[in-house]
Amino acid sequence: MAKKLKAWQGWLIYGGSLVVVFVLGIIVSSLIERRSEVASIFNNRQTKMSGIVTQNEKFKVDFPNEYESWKATEDTTFKSEFNGNAQHDDLASHPAEVIFWAGYAFSRDYASPRGHYHALEDMRNTLRTGTPFTRDQNIQPGTCWTCKSPDVPRYMKEHGIANFYKAKWSDLGAEIVNPIGCSDCHDPATMNLRISRPALIEAFKRQGRDITKASQQEMRTLVCAQCHVEYYFKGDGKYLTFPWDKGLTVENIEAYYDSLNYSDFVNPISRTPILKAQHPGYETTRMGIHAQRGVSCADCHMPYKSEGGIKYSDHQIMSPLAHIDRTCQTCHRQDAEVLRQNVYDRQRKCEEIRDKLETELCKAHLEAQFAWNHGATQQEMQPVLKLIRQSQWRWDFGVASHGAAFHAPQEIMRILGNGLERALQARLAIAKIVAKHGFTGDIPLPDVSTKEKAQKYIGLDMNKLRAEKQRFINTIIPKWLQEAKAKGRLTREM
Amino acid sequence: MAKKLKAWQGWLIYGGSLVVVFVLGIIVSSLIERRSEVASIFNNRQTKMSGIVTQNEKFKVDFPNEYESWKATEDTTFKSEFNGNAQHDDLASHPAEVIFWAGYAFSRDYASPRGHYHALEDMRNTLRTGTPFTRDQNIQPGTCWTCKSPDVPRYMKEHGIANFYKAKWSDLGAEIVNPIGCSDCHDPATMNLRISRPALIEAFKRQGRDITKASQQEMRTLVCAQCHVEYYFKGDGKYLTFPWDKGLTVENIEAYYDSLNYSDFVNPISRTPILKAQHPGYETTRMGIHAQRGVSCADCHMPYKSEGGIKYSDHQIMSPLAHIDRTCQTCHRQDAEVLRQNVYDRQRKCEEIRDKLETELCKAHLEAQFAWNHGATQQEMQPVLKLIRQSQWRWDFGVASHGAAFHAPQEIMRILGNGLERALQARLAIAKIVAKHGFTGDIPLPDVSTKEKAQKYIGLDMNKLRAEKQRFINTIIPKWLQEAKAKGRLTREM
Repeated sequence: MAKKLKAWQGWLIYGGSLVVVFVLGIIVSSLIERRSEVASIFNNRQTKMSGIVTQNEKFKVDFPNEYESWKATEDTTFKSEFNGNAQHDDLASHPAEVIFWAGYAFSRDYASPRGHYHALEDMRNTLRTGTPFTRDQNIQPGTCWTCKSPDVPRYMKEHGIANFYKAKWSDLGAEIVNPIGCSDCHDPATMNLRISRPALIEAFKRQGRDITKASQQEMRTLVCAQCHVEYYFKGDGKYLTFPWDKGLTVENIEAYYDSLNYSDFVNPISRTPILKAQHPGYETTRMGIHAQRGVSCADCHMPYKSEGGIKYSDHQIMSPLAHIDRTCQTCHRQDAEVLRQNVYDRQRKCEEIRDKLETELCKAHLEAQFAWNHGATQQEMQPVLKLIRQSQWRWDFGVASHGAAFHAPQEIMRILGNGLERALQARLAIAKIVAKHGFTGDIPLPDVSTKEKAQKYIGLDMNKLRAEKQRFINTIIPKWLQEAKAKGRLTREM
Repeated sequence: MAKKLKAWQGWLIYGGSLVVVFVLGIIVSSLIERRSEVASIFNNRQTKMSGIVTQNEKFKVDFPNEYESWKATEDTTFKSEFNGNAQHDDLASHPAEVIFWAGYAFSRDYASPRGHYHALEDMRNTLRTGTPFTRDQNIQPGTCWTCKSPDVPRYMKEHGIANFYKAKWSDLGAEIVNPIGCSDCHDPATMNLRISRPALIEAFKRQGRDITKASQQEMRTLVCAQCHVEYYFKGDGKYLTFPWDKGLTVENIEAYYDSLNYSDFVNPISRTPILKAQHPGYETTRMGIHAQRGVSCADCHMPYKSEGGIKYSDHQIMSPLAHIDRTCQTCHRQDAEVLRQNVYDRQRKCEEIRDKLETELCKAHLEAQFAWNHGATQQEMQPVLKLIRQSQWRWDFGVASHGAAFHAPQEIMRILGNGLERALQARLAIAKIVAKHGFTGDIPLPDVSTKEKAQKYIGLDMNKLRAEKQRFINTIIPKWLQEAKAKGRLTREM
């Protein structure tokens, strides 16, 4: 019987083999096609490039997927759950910030960030950059532009790094005209990831590390760390510097600033020399489990997308919660709604301590003012001012990087818990000082419960500031853009 | 050519099939053998059992793996990194606890827990149970024994639940003699997991839930939740009750106690009605990601072991860090040392806020005492006492469950942060009160920086207490054990 079956068995094996080999052929062909499509892009670029290419539009033909998704950062609907595509007014929802930043431009205007596409527009329009109709009316240095455009590395190359930083803000209005884009993170010749800003390279060097040795996966975080970090403007030359020489924790960076006796401004209410935290996103993320497990910024904020034969990174950088299927669920098998609630839970717990800290720190500033007004001496107030400085530094460090409550929930709780403690210690010390000067009981405080009341209390004439800004936007900014176009720096229609 | 190969091809298929079927046979046989070994245990038990079997030794022959690993809880070396197998003296490392628990037995003696095997021995020996040479010298009710022995459900069945709780502690000395073991969690007839304690069943019932509907995986947590929870002794009958009716968060349980105007004792230093948290391990674990992802207590604390043909749960319950290969690494692919450091990191951050809270709360108690001594009125002190009560409740809830800093790191930070805030608010309020009564400046505090100094400060004569306890251990306890043996309750040699 075995012999009888042999003939059709042989043919079955033969036929089966043909089918398998055919399918294999199709798969291999598909793989080759995919590779060749990728290779063809790099071998047959329409626009050959080298150096720094500032105009993002030039990348559109060769890299349509990346370009279009970058351009989609124009839409930041997801971020602004408050009122559509507009920015959320943080001072309105947290009026205590007006008190914290009295004497500093942030007390005028502080709103949620929008996408990279809007970087320049939002910077020109904010009240924080003032209205320098003439050069000596500048309230900000050139350094402020550093993170906003690929024109920055171009200008630095043409004029020198230090000259960029020490310019006045308005000096560069017609120079820095293309918003954050391709050349900020890529070498246009090869499209390899590249660090374009000196501050990160210099910070690594001072730590004895060579950033050119970073792996591709590390670069997928480090290109973001060029800007999403804590920094300060060093010396009269306003040289952009990362305060990382003693380490990257909130205490390390405070120790660095303290050792230089550095402060960003003096709060005129409490007379405290204040450290303004920028957005230490890179530093705080490192304290959390995702970064510790090797997850890069791009893994969650620029997830891969497949379209046609091409897999590419989504350049519409935004909250990973906007498309959990391509972000969290790459690793986590839970339901999207469960994962979303896990994030919100972490944020809510941080916000709980943040709110308490904000309340106490606001009182500390105002009670310190009361103490000064009731005869407190410099010597008595010294420990109080130190506590307020420490408290506000912790509050700002923990809050300023919006993602931190999720990136490193427990570390942010630790930081905010310490800030809360310092604020209350300050209030306790003030209570003892005013008691010595004859005042007992609760210190009477002004009503600063809304943004408007708080801004009025610190002496800001907001109507005047806004009117001036509008006049600046209507008259000066069009001139900048006109000049940029005339000189061929700007090809995009604004 | 295809025709020529047919003969040996046929034989190849035939031979190959034989080999595959043979190997399959071996695998199936091995599976059946394994199953039959398991089945044989349950079908051929040497000791047929039913009801509650209090003597753990009786399970030794039929369940040697479970029994031997349970018996290994005699060794708690891993827990006691401080001094070998002895208990760690928590009051010595945190003298502030003596102040917190002034007027309560915990101020005499509070040490780290040892394994289940030592449950009764440690309870008899602690200074907290006192020295009831006579019945009216009891300082604890029968309820204290509830979690310590399978003799408890036996006694409850024989004499009624309420009669067990309302007994004096010493009434049950010769009754409760076998340490936590098999019948506490298992039905001896089937070895199915079973809830043996009424408080958990009753708490579920009051919430409208039926605990008999729990899945096997839920039971692997709920048998632990019979004891590793927050509870209190309700009313004169000292009826053991879980305060879960308003929910399981620290605020929910506080609201429950507040609604009953309940407190465990009044601290005589600050005159605060205090809530003593027990060990809300179940409640806090639920707030963390492991429980939220469906991980049970047993998954980490009783990991599976394979020996011979049998897979069984390790009953040497201890820290999962003692054998990371069988616990964390079941799910997490990181290096054991990395995982260990991840746990320690979380604990360190919690300890940082814990230490600050402890310092401030200790000062709050002592400063409140100063305020009372300097003419503060009941009305003035009322808000202060409320803050101290809230602060100490949060401190205790966050700290008393040793694993909580890992089980739910961010929730514990939230709880401790809130406790820290309340302690400082209390101190601020006190500063204002004493100022009104003419005292300004820092309140002078006694030196309570060691356990000895603190115990002396609260008026404890520790030498006398220890000597009395030793006399009690030498004279009364041997009588209890003798009686238990005579009545056949205790078969194990002590």
